[in-house]
Amino acid sequence: MTKKWVYLFEEGNEGMRNLLGGKGAGLAEMTNAGLPVPSGFTITTEACNAYFDAGKQFPEGMWDQVLAAMKKVEDQTGNKFGDPSNPLLVSCRSGARASMPGMMNTVLNIGLNFDTIVGLAEPVDDDRFAWDAYRRLIQMFGNIVKGVSRHKFEAILDEYKAKTEGGKDTDLTTDMLKDVVKDFKALYKKELGEDFPNDPYQQLRQAIAAVFDSWFGAPAVTYRNTEGLPHDWGTGVNVQTVVFGNMGWDSGSGVAFTRNPATGEKQIYGEYLLNAQGEDVVAGIRTPHKIAEMKDELPEAYEQFLEICDLLERHYRDVQDVEFTIERGKLWMLQTRRGERTAAAAVRIAMDMVKEGLITKEEALMRVTPAQVDQFLHPRFDPKAILKAKEDGNLLAVGLNASPGAATGIAIFDADTAGKWGRPEFPVEEAGAQLRALIGEERAKQLGSEAFQEIKDERGNTRALKIKVILVRPETNPDDVHGMVAAQGILTQHGGMTSHAAVVARGWGKPCVAGCEAIKIDLAARKFSVNGREIREGAYISINGATGEVFEGSIATIRPRFEEEHDLVTLLGWADEVRKLGVWTNADNPQDAARARAFGAEGIGLCRTEHMFFDQEGEEISRRENVVKMIMAEDEEERQKYLDRLLPFQRKDFEGIFRAMDGCPVIIRLIDPPMHEFLPPREELIEEVTRLRCNNENPDELAEKEKMLQVVKSLWETNPMMGLRGCRAGIMYKGLTEMQTRAIIEAACNVAQEGVDVHPEIMIPLTSHINELHEERKKLEAVAREVVAEKGVDVKYKFGTMIEVPRAAITADEIAKYADFFSFGTNDLTQMTYGISRDDAEGKFLLDYVDRKILPNNPFEVLDRDGVGVLMKMCVEKGRATKPDLEVGICGEHGGDHASIEYCHLLGLNYVSCSPFRVPPARLSAAQAALLYEYGRKQ
Amino acid sequence: MTKKWVYLFEEGNEGMRNLLGGKGAGLAEMTNAGLPVPSGFTITTEACNAYFDAGKQFPEGMWDQVLAAMKKVEDQTGNKFGDPSNPLLVSCRSGARASMPGMMNTVLNIGLNFDTIVGLAEPVDDDRFAWDAYRRLIQMFGNIVKGVSRHKFEAILDEYKAKTEGGKDTDLTTDMLKDVVKDFKALYKKELGEDFPNDPYQQLRQAIAAVFDSWFGAPAVTYRNTEGLPHDWGTGVNVQTVVFGNMGWDSGSGVAFTRNPATGEKQIYGEYLLNAQGEDVVAGIRTPHKIAEMKDELPEAYEQFLEICDLLERHYRDVQDVEFTIERGKLWMLQTRRGERTAAAAVRIAMDMVKEGLITKEEALMRVTPAQVDQFLHPRFDPKAILKAKEDGNLLAVGLNASPGAATGIAIFDADTAGKWGRPEFPVEEAGAQLRALIGEERAKQLGSEAFQEIKDERGNTRALKIKVILVRPETNPDDVHGMVAAQGILTQHGGMTSHAAVVARGWGKPCVAGCEAIKIDLAARKFSVNGREIREGAYISINGATGEVFEGSIATIRPRFEEEHDLVTLLGWADEVRKLGVWTNADNPQDAARARAFGAEGIGLCRTEHMFFDQEGEEISRRENVVKMIMAEDEEERQKYLDRLLPFQRKDFEGIFRAMDGCPVIIRLIDPPMHEFLPPREELIEEVTRLRCNNENPDELAEKEKMLQVVKSLWETNPMMGLRGCRAGIMYKGLTEMQTRAIIEAACNVAQEGVDVHPEIMIPLTSHINELHEERKKLEAVAREVVAEKGVDVKYKFGTMIEVPRAAITADEIAKYADFFSFGTNDLTQMTYGISRDDAEGKFLLDYVDRKILPNNPFEVLDRDGVGVLMKMCVEKGRATKPDLEVGICGEHGGDHASIEYCHLLGLNYVSCSPFRVPPARLSAAQAALLYEYGRKQ
Repeated sequence: MTKKWVYLFEEGNEGMRNLLGGKGAGLAEMTNAGLPVPSGFTITTEACNAYFDAGKQFPEGMWDQVLAAMKKVEDQTGNKFGDPSNPLLVSCRSGARASMPGMMNTVLNIGLNFDTIVGLAEPVDDDRFAWDAYRRLIQMFGNIVKGVSRHKFEAILDEYKAKTEGGKDTDLTTDMLKDVVKDFKALYKKELGEDFPNDPYQQLRQAIAAVFDSWFGAPAVTYRNTEGLPHDWGTGVNVQTVVFGNMGWDSGSGVAFTRNPATGEKQIYGEYLLNAQGEDVVAGIRTPHKIAEMKDELPEAYEQFLEICDLLERHYRDVQDVEFTIERGKLWMLQTRRGERTAAAAVRIAMDMVKEGLITKEEALMRVTPAQVDQFLHPRFDPKAILKAKEDGNLLAVGLNASPGAATGIAIFDADTAGKWGRPEFPVEEAGAQLRALIGEERAKQLGSEAFQEIKDERGNTRALKIKVILVRPETNPDDVHGMVAAQGILTQHGGMTSHAAVVARGWGKPCVAGCEAIKIDLAARKFSVNGREIREGAYISINGATGEVFEGSIATIRPRFEEEHDLVTLLGWADEVRKLGVWTNADNPQDAARARAFGAEGIGLCRTEHMFFDQEGEEISRRENVVKMIMAEDEEERQKYLDRLLPFQRKDFEGIFRAMDGCPVIIRLIDPPMHEFLPPREELIEEVTRLRCNNENPDELAEKEKMLQVVKSLWETNPMMGLRGCRAGIMYKGLTEMQTRAIIEAACNVAQEGVDVHPEIMIPLTSHINELHEERKKLEAVAREVVAEKGVDVKYKFGTMIEVPRAAITADEIAKYADFFSFGTNDLTQMTYGISRDDAEGKFLLDYVDRKILPNNPFEVLDRDGVGVLMKMCVEKGRATKPDLEVGICGEHGGDHASIEYCHLLGLNYVSCSPFRVPPARLSAAQAALLYEYGRKQ
Repeated sequence: MTKKWVYLFEEGNEGMRNLLGGKGAGLAEMTNAGLPVPSGFTITTEACNAYFDAGKQFPEGMWDQVLAAMKKVEDQTGNKFGDPSNPLLVSCRSGARASMPGMMNTVLNIGLNFDTIVGLAEPVDDDRFAWDAYRRLIQMFGNIVKGVSRHKFEAILDEYKAKTEGGKDTDLTTDMLKDVVKDFKALYKKELGEDFPNDPYQQLRQAIAAVFDSWFGAPAVTYRNTEGLPHDWGTGVNVQTVVFGNMGWDSGSGVAFTRNPATGEKQIYGEYLLNAQGEDVVAGIRTPHKIAEMKDELPEAYEQFLEICDLLERHYRDVQDVEFTIERGKLWMLQTRRGERTAAAAVRIAMDMVKEGLITKEEALMRVTPAQVDQFLHPRFDPKAILKAKEDGNLLAVGLNASPGAATGIAIFDADTAGKWGRPEFPVEEAGAQLRALIGEERAKQLGSEAFQEIKDERGNTRALKIKVILVRPETNPDDVHGMVAAQGILTQHGGMTSHAAVVARGWGKPCVAGCEAIKIDLAARKFSVNGREIREGAYISINGATGEVFEGSIATIRPRFEEEHDLVTLLGWADEVRKLGVWTNADNPQDAARARAFGAEGIGLCRTEHMFFDQEGEEISRRENVVKMIMAEDEEERQKYLDRLLPFQRKDFEGIFRAMDGCPVIIRLIDPPMHEFLPPREELIEEVTRLRCNNENPDELAEKEKMLQVVKSLWETNPMMGLRGCRAGIMYKGLTEMQTRAIIEAACNVAQEGVDVHPEIMIPLTSHINELHEERKKLEAVAREVVAEKGVDVKYKFGTMIEVPRAAITADEIAKYADFFSFGTNDLTQMTYGISRDDAEGKFLLDYVDRKILPNNPFEVLDRDGVGVLMKMCVEKGRATKPDLEVGICGEHGGDHASIEYCHLLGLNYVSCSPFRVPPARLSAAQAALLYEYGRKQ
C-alpha cells in the first residue's frame, strides 16, 4: 500500500500542522468547525520532501490520490474539472508548518481554457469576468510556474489600462481582455518556446510541482535563513475550489485580523476590495478599503463575517488572520491563521484575553515573545525632535503606520543596493572609506557618523559599523527580502496594512510606513517627489512606523519609559512569579546599575573593572596615565606607587555601584584584559617611530616613543585572548589585584557605614587550573580580611571565578573547592570550545558559515548546546557534586538570549546576567522556560 | 596509642620504601639478609610530614620512640650513648622514597663531646683519630644543622693543612686538630651566638630536625622540581651506629657499583679511600683510589666485599650502588640502592642479566627508561672533527668520562651565572641583543650562532634560542644544581666517578667530565689554566663525556648510527613484541620518512603540507611566489591559475614520501596555517611603507608594498590560532584543498603504478562542527574519485580529521560519522582547553607557573590528563560508539612523551605519532605501558 499523500479538508485538523502545513491544517480545522470553506484537499509536506528526495519526481501514488480527491471535490461542488458546461476551477497554494508571508506561490483559476471559459461566463452572464479570470491564470501560471518576469505581463496590462479612462484594471473591457489574453499567450510562447497548456490536469500537475519547487527558491531560503527555520520541513500544497471575488460589484475579497495587529485594540481590522480576487488586496496594486466600510457596501456579508471572526477567536483562543472572498454576496472563508502582531499588540491582546477569561495568565506569558518585549524598549523618535522637524518643514508625507518603530537612514531604491550597503559590518577604521567609496567624499562628509549604526561588543565598545539605509519601494515582494533584512526600515508607496512590506516588517519588528501614496517614486531616476520636493538616492530620511510619518533628514531618538508601559510591567510581574532563574545585569557604573534595577534586575552578575582604568569625565588626574606608568614600572616599588594612586578612583567607582545596588549582590570581576590593551597599538607606534626616525627632527619624542614601543613589543602576544590576562595578570603583576580587592572591600565597608546593604562578590577571571584560583584567592582573601579588620565593619564577601576556559569546566569539581560561586563567561568559553576567535571570525568566515548553513546559527548569539553546553552541564554537575549549594550563573552575552536562557534554566543555574536593556525580555524568557519545563505547559 | 614513628632496621624491609625511605628500607633489607650492617633505626617519612604539618614540631611520641630505639642499639653494640668510657656514636642521614643524590644532609659522629672523646680514643689508642672525628662532627653539625658556611670551616682547615708538609688532611697532627676544634667552636659561637651543644641527645635531636628541614631546603626543592617528583613524600631519617673508616690505615671507606655504571660492563666499579670517612670519597676533596686496588691493600675485606656484591645482585636482581666502611679490617655495609646508570649501561646490563638468567625479557624492558633510549640517539662529536681538533692542538686535557655525551658552550665558573645565562629561552629576535649584553659586542660577534641552542616548535621551526654554557667547577655540590640544570655539560677539576657532579649528570643524561685535575681553576680570576694555556670565562669549550676529553673551541656533532647499537635494536625488538600501540612518525619529506622507518616507525601520522608551499632548493620556479599570488588573487579564476601551478610540486613531494613509506599508512594533513603566514609580517610592511612614504623616492616600490600591506591588513587576525585556518581555509578559499587532494591522489596513483604499496589518508584539520568536515569531505572525495577514475588505478584512501578543537572532542559521536580516522592534535587541543597560547605563554608566565608549582608541569610537554585527557577519553568513547573500528591516534608533541604515551595506551589509541628521533623511545614507552597495564607487571 502506498503512503497517504493527500487529505481532503474534512480529513484533517489543526493538530496535523506538521503534516498538512499551517494553511492546510487551518482549512481542515475551519471546515470541520462548520465554517463556509470552499471544498478542497491538501498534499502533505511529506510529499514535498519525498519529491525532493526523488530528484523532483512526485512520489509513488501521489498523483492518483490527487485525481481521486479531485473527484470528491467535483462531487461536493457539483462542478467538473475541465467540463466546458460546468467547469470546476481550483487554486493551488503553498502552506508550510510556519507562516512565511508572501514567500510561497499561488496559482488561481486552474482549469480554465478556451472550452471551459464559456461555462464560467455563462451562469453569471459575464464574459468580461471570465476573460479576466483567464488572463489572471495565464499571468500567474506564466510567472510562478514558468518563471516569466511578472513585469512583462504587467507591462502588457499597463498598455491596455492606459487606453482606458479610469486607468484601473476594472476599467478594461471584455475585448481588451481578450486582446490581453492573446498578448499574454504570445508572450508565454515567445519566452518559453511552448504553448500555454490547455489541458486542466496539465495545469494542475505543473502548478503542484511549482509549489514544491518554490520551497527551495531563493526568497524562501533567504527567509528561512533569516528566521532560523529548518529547510527540511517542506511545504504542503492546498488545492481548493476557486471562489470569485471579482464576479461583479456584489463580490469582493479581503483579509482581516480579528483584532488590530498594530495596537491590539479589540476591533476587527482589515481591508477588502470589491470585484477583486484576493491577490489584489495583498499585492498592493489597488489600495483597498477599510473593513468597516463593508458594513455599508455588503451589510449581510459583513454581519456574517463578524460572527465568524468571533467564532474563530473563541475556537482558537487567539487573534486570527483570515482571508475571505464574497462571491455574489456569499461569504467564503479561505484561510485562517494565528495573527502576527506588533509587540504592543501582543502585550495588549494577551492582557485583554486574560481579562476576557479567554486565556490564563500562564498562557498570556506564552503569547508574548521576549523579542517583542525587547521591541518595546527600542528607541523611538524624541517628541521634541519631531516637533522641531515639523516646524522646519521636514515632514514630507504620512503613510500607513504599518510596523511601529523609528528608523533613519539613507534612502535606497532597490533591494540589491540596500543589501550591498546595509548588510556588511565594517571594522570601525574601514567604515569611513567604505562609505566614501559608496556615496562619494562630499556626501559622506555631510552625513558623518549619522550614516552608521554602531555594533557593540560584549564590553560595550563599538565593534563594527553598519551603514543605515531605508529601503524605498513602490511595493515590495519576496524578491526584495534581502534588501529588507539589511534596511533599518521600509517605506512603500503602495499597499495596505496587510501588504507584503507591512506583514514582513511587523514579523521582524522592523519599522515600516506603507501605502504612502503622496510620494511619487521614479525608480529609473532613483528618487521620489513629494509636494514639489525631490528626495534622491543617498539622501537621509526618517520614518516613524508608529505614526506613518516620513521626514527628510535625521531625527533624534529616545528610549521609551519602561515604567509607563503598564501592561508590560504587569505581564513581567507575572513572569517573575513563575520563573526559577534570577535575572541579573552586567553593569560597570552606577547609571547602568540603576537603569537595570528599574528594569527588574536582581543583582549585578558582571561588573567589569577595566573601564575604570580609563579617564573619566571631570577628574583632574588622568587614570590612564597612571595605568600606563604602572605597566611600564621598572620595579615593584615603582609599580606600587602608581597602584596606590589608582586605588581611590576604583574605590569611588565601587561605592557608587554598591549604593545603586543596595540590598543586591554585586559580582565584580578583577582586571581581565592583557596589559597591552592599555598602551597604544604596536602598529601605530611602529609607524610613528619610523616616521620620527626618518624626519630626524624630534629626538625627545622619538626616544619616548621608542621606549614605549619597546615595552609594547615585550608585552605583545600572537594570540592575546589566550595570553597573559585574567588571573594570570593578577598572579604575575604583583600588587594589581591586591589593589583592586582593597578598593572593593574598602568601598563596601564605607557604604555599609552609610547604611547600605552591601553584598560584594569578587570574581577571579580565566581560571584554567585550580592552583591559579587557589593562589589568587589566598592572597586576596588576606587583603579582604585585613581591610575588614582595619575598618571594623562586618561586611561579608564571596570569592568565585569565571568559567570561561574549557579546562575550568572540565575540572569544576576541583575548582569548586576554592570558589563560592561560578559564573559562565560563555563568550570566551565559546571561542575556546569552538576554536573560533570572534573578532576575527565574524568578518572572515563565521557569517558566511551561517549563511551557508555550515553552522546552524552564530554560536556567539545562540548558545551552542551540543558543544559549549555539554561543558556547562559537566561543570554544573561536577561543581555541585563538590559544593551542593554552589551559586552558578552566566554573564556572557548568551545570558540575554532567549534560547540560551532556556538552556540555563534546564541546567539549573541560579541566574542569568545580561546588559540592562535585555533584562525585561530575559525575565519573560526565564518565565517561559519555567512554564515549558516546570509546569508541563507548552503552547 | 601513638603511631609507630620509628623502626629498628630488623623491623623493616625493602617493601616499606614509601614509609622508611629508600635508604632505610635498603638498610633493613640488608640487615635481614644477614649482611654486616651497623645497628640502627629509621624514623619514618610519615614522621617527616607530621613534623611539617605541626609547624616543625616532632609528632607526639616520636622522641620517646627514638630514645627506646637508642636503648636497643646500645644493647646490640654494647656501647652507650654519651658514656665517657664506652661511647656509642651515631650518624643521622636522610633517605627519601627515591634516590636524590647529594641532596639530603648527613651528620656523622653524633654523641661526641669532651667527655666521650676520651672513650673513643682509648680502645684504639689514637687521640688524633678521636679529635679528627670531633672536628668533623662540629663541622658537619655547624654547616648542615645550623647553616654556617662550609667554606668558613674549610678555610680554617686549609690554614692548618698549609702548615703541614703533605698539605692533606691526613697530615694534620693531634695538636693541630685540637686547635682546629677550638677554632671551629669559636667560629660556631661567633656565627650562631651560642655554644656547640655538649649534650649528645641535644645533638641528636637537632640533627634529626635538620634532616627533616632539609626536605624543604632549596636544593632538594630544585631537584624535585627538575625531576618532577612530588613534595609530599617526605624523607625518612636513618640513625645508625658510626663505624670509622678513618681509624688508621687498616680502615677505609668506599662507594661502589656492582657493575660499571657508565658502560654496563660486569665488573665491580668504585672508589675508596684509606683512613677516611665515607663523606670524603663522595665529596671529591681527595681523589680516591679505584676499587681494584683494594685487593692489594686490604685483601680480606676485598674478598668479603666481592661476595657481598654478588649476594646483593642476586638478592635485588639489579645493579646496586653501595657504600661501605672498613673499620680496622672489618667490612661494614652502610647502604645499598639501585645503581643509577648511563643509557648505554642500562641497555647492556638489562641484556646481560637476561642472558645470565637473572631477569626476564619483560623485566629487561622495564629496566631501561625511554629517556635513556633517547640519550643513545643524542648527537656525539664527529670523529673527523675530533681528529682535526687534536691536530690543531685544541685538546686541552682528559678527565674522567663521568657521563657520556657531547657538549659545547661558553665556559662559566659559577652556578648562578650559568643559571642566569643558560636557563632563559629568548625569542629569536631578542637573543642576539641578550648575548651582546651578557658577553659584550665583540665576543658575541665572534661566537655568532654557535652561542645558541635552538629550541624547536612543533613544526620544526626555531621557536627560541638558549645560550649554551658549560659549567666549570672545582667540584659541585647541591647548591650548584640550578647551574647544572642550565648548562649543556659539566666539567670538574676534582672528584671521581661517584662524585656529586658525576652522579647527578649521569642521572640527567647530561655530559660530564669529572676529576680533570690537569685544569687548574682560579675562581677569583674566573679562568682555568692548562698546559700553559688560559681559558677565561666566556671562552668556548667542548667536552666529551664518553672519553673525558676537553677541547678549546666548538666541535661539530653527528647523530649516532641507530642500526649499529645492536643491544638497543634487540631490546626494542622485544618492545615491539609486547606493545599494543603502533608507533608512527611525523614527517614532511622523504628523508625524514626514511629515517623514521629505520627507527621503527610503522606509518606517518602527520605529514604537514605547508612546508611544501615554501621554496625548495634546486627548483627553478618559486613556490612561494605562486603561493603569494594565489592568496592575493582577485578572483577565483586567477586563484585557480596559481593553484594549478602549485599542483605538480605538491604531487612530486607526495610521490617521494609515498615511496619512502611503501606498505605503510601515510596521513597527510591539508593546509593548516592561516594564509597570512605566507606573506610578509604586517609590522615589517608598516615600517617599510612608512619609510618609503617618508623618503618619497621610489613610488613603484611604495605602490607595490602598499598593495601588499592592504592584503596583509585584510587578512590580519587578532588571534590567528583561532582564525581562518585549517578546514576553514579549505572551505573559504575555493580550489585550495581540491588542488591538494588532487596532488595526493595523483601521486598515490602514480607510485602505485610503479608497484609501491600506497595507503594515503587525507586529514582535514581544525574541525569544530560536523558540517565543516562533511562539507570538505564531500567536496574532496569527489575530487579523489575523479582522479582515481582518470588514472584507472585502484588506490584506496581514507578521509579523517584532526581532533584539536575541544568541541570536536565533545561532539565526536557526530564527527565519527564522516571520519574514517581521528588524530589528536594535542598541541592545539591543549592550547584551547587550557586557554593558553603556547608561543605567548612560555616566555611570559608558563615556565614561571611551573617553577612556582602553580602547574604540576608544562602541559605542552606532558599531557594534562585531568583536563585535555578527559576530553580525549570522551572523544574516543563517543567516536567508537558511532564507529567501533575507528582508527584513533595522536600526532601532537605528546605522542613522543613517555607519560603521555602511557595515557594513550590507557585510552586504547591505535598509535602514537612523533618526530623521527622520538620513535625509538616511544617504542619502549608503549611496551612499558603494555607491561604495566596489560600484563599486571610493575617493577
